[in-house]
Amino acid sequence: MTRVLKVELGERSYPLNIGAGLLADPASFVDLKGKPLRVVTDANVAARYLDPVLDALGLTREHAFVLPAGETQKTLANAELLLDWLLASRIARDGVLIALGGGVIGDLTGFVAAIYQRGIAFVQMPTTLLSQVDSSVGGKTGVNHARGKNLIGAFHQPVAVYADTSTLATLPPRELSAGIAEVIKCGMLGDSGLFARLERDMDALLELDGTALAEAIERCCQLKARIVALDERESLAGGPRTLLNLGHTFGHAVETYTKYESWLHGEAVGLGLAMAADLSMRLGWLKPDDAERCIRLIERARLPIRPPAGMTPDDFRSLMARDKKVAAGKLRLVLMRAIGESTTTADFDTAALDATLAHFCSTEPATESRPALPVS
Amino acid sequence: MTRVLKVELGERSYPLNIGAGLLADPASFVDLKGKPLRVVTDANVAARYLDPVLDALGLTREHAFVLPAGETQKTLANAELLLDWLLASRIARDGVLIALGGGVIGDLTGFVAAIYQRGIAFVQMPTTLLSQVDSSVGGKTGVNHARGKNLIGAFHQPVAVYADTSTLATLPPRELSAGIAEVIKCGMLGDSGLFARLERDMDALLELDGTALAEAIERCCQLKARIVALDERESLAGGPRTLLNLGHTFGHAVETYTKYESWLHGEAVGLGLAMAADLSMRLGWLKPDDAERCIRLIERARLPIRPPAGMTPDDFRSLMARDKKVAAGKLRLVLMRAIGESTTTADFDTAALDATLAHFCSTEPATESRPALPVS
Repeated sequence: MTRVLKVELGERSYPLNIGAGLLADPASFVDLKGKPLRVVTDANVAARYLDPVLDALGLTREHAFVLPAGETQKTLANAELLLDWLLASRIARDGVLIALGGGVIGDLTGFVAAIYQRGIAFVQMPTTLLSQVDSSVGGKTGVNHARGKNLIGAFHQPVAVYADTSTLATLPPRELSAGIAEVIKCGMLGDSGLFARLERDMDALLELDGTALAEAIERCCQLKARIVALDERESLAGGPRTLLNLGHTFGHAVETYTKYESWLHGEAVGLGLAMAADLSMRLGWLKPDDAERCIRLIERARLPIRPPAGMTPDDFRSLMARDKKVAAGKLRLVLMRAIGESTTTADFDTAALDATLAHFCSTEPATESRPALPVS
Repeated sequence: MTRVLKVELGERSYPLNIGAGLLADPASFVDLKGKPLRVVTDANVAARYLDPVLDALGLTREHAFVLPAGETQKTLANAELLLDWLLASRIARDGVLIALGGGVIGDLTGFVAAIYQRGIAFVQMPTTLLSQVDSSVGGKTGVNHARGKNLIGAFHQPVAVYADTSTLATLPPRELSAGIAEVIKCGMLGDSGLFARLERDMDALLELDGTALAEAIERCCQLKARIVALDERESLAGGPRTLLNLGHTFGHAVETYTKYESWLHGEAVGLGLAMAADLSMRLGWLKPDDAERCIRLIERARLPIRPPAGMTPDDFRSLMARDKKVAAGKLRLVLMRAIGESTTTADFDTAALDATLAHFCSTEPATESRPALPVS
């Protein structure tokens, strides 16, 4: 069964299709027939899904550009390669660029679509849980720079998203958990019903149950779509869209501390969510039982709830002070008022933050250390 | 006297300030005070205007990036240099990028602002007549590619435009006439009052009369603003925004034929406007007297009304067939119904087009051949 969620952004509205087996089914793509199509993907994804997708679209390998896999490919140099390729193929402004893969491919391809001839249509075919819930809604595209991630980019909405849950069957367990972190985040920040459903369905999600996955993705994307519709370009400081950063200020500190080498983004967010719940509880904003439910759910998703070995409260404080959300020298955090209700604020008791940091850093780190991420 | 025209684009609306001496007056820039500002310009413009502008803004040379002058600088490589510079200066998302110069600087700087951290504010300070009437309204930004002009870019509206008419005093006469071509175009396609005013004021414009210039720029930008508001991203095929291409299909053929080496864009547009008026007359859509008024006005602006020596009707036909506006094999043209009234259509008698081409190409070319453009 295919679920279709309409992401409402006025004239930039688009359908988000969710279901098992979408990508290999020509019926999915009737709206794309007759248009000049080009597919961008990476070598790992290509090995599994490129030929079925090309078949379903009536295309051949010459219509596809296959990049090496990995975050290091998300560069302006690769964007330029893709622009050259599109120009050499004489793709006009009615062309459609298709991103088949995870967040790296989606962000890079979306950026190229945003700047090719001042913007052409693009389609997302996300093949990881993280990209299905995170990159499918929001319109953020971009590439990395030596000075940091996503420093060059644009807002560019896709014309359609196809989230095929059957592609998740081949996802490594750590990546699955990292994707689930973003789903838990959505429940915590704005949808108590989704949160309750995750408590019920966590085992099914970890076993890749198609219905549980599709429901979670749909509900998560619905919430994101509502928030993005209020603040499409994240132009409101402290506005609705900043709520999507719940757990991220703590998480970014962990990613920076570990030099992006051993923690997946979703793993760092998982820990950050636990820390945000703990701090919200210490401020008296979140009931202790509810904070406990949050931390328990994160743990059940096989996500870390302890900082990396050796990371101190001072490490957190100095790394968090560099966050984009710092305004006029004051740290802003997304914090919870209840499960499903959050707020962005710089107005909190820093003693509570100190207590949260002391609590998490004093606990013995998990004995198993996190293995390095695969180099790509 | 400063005229302020509000360009109405909903939440992307901005003021367009027109007047003599704006750039050297700190009072012009009160809205920019306190923000992180950076200025991009070229060596020619810098020699005349950079220091006064920096003084008025309270900045120094270290806040400015000076590129060599010329169209060859409008590259992705230069965009990357500017991105690196902004990142090295730690400009955050509240930064404002200022383009001080003609169309090349405006297009390049606007593009960098569009993709820096997914878009920061930018300000246009156009210093040529063409950029004051053409690039100030419309939000088109971009860079060139080996395969063609403006093939990489984005729509990104400025937050303010300052068109200082006193900068036109140093404009070479050919550049002035080329800028006037775009003003005449506005009158022909959508504002008969502007057209009549140009007939009255042409000599004053050529003598750089400040009031005549400011009036013409304002009226031209008003018309453009109305049209752009209807179709901000030029997404409607044959929609209102295509009217701004009056004369351009003929003009592009001339530019391509002469390899962009000897005709200024505005000169080619001037001839194209004459040809469009002639064709509209032959179709019975435009009164012969009115076609004559158009051609006479173009001539008075010291613009060419003859094709380059040696260019044949077949040259025009084959180069025009490559135009972006060709849809389903049929050439679309912007044509006139009256002075101030135009339409985009593929539904015209091609025999009339043949007659126009034969008429213009049979006439002896102007004896003086057009000198090569300065290499930059």
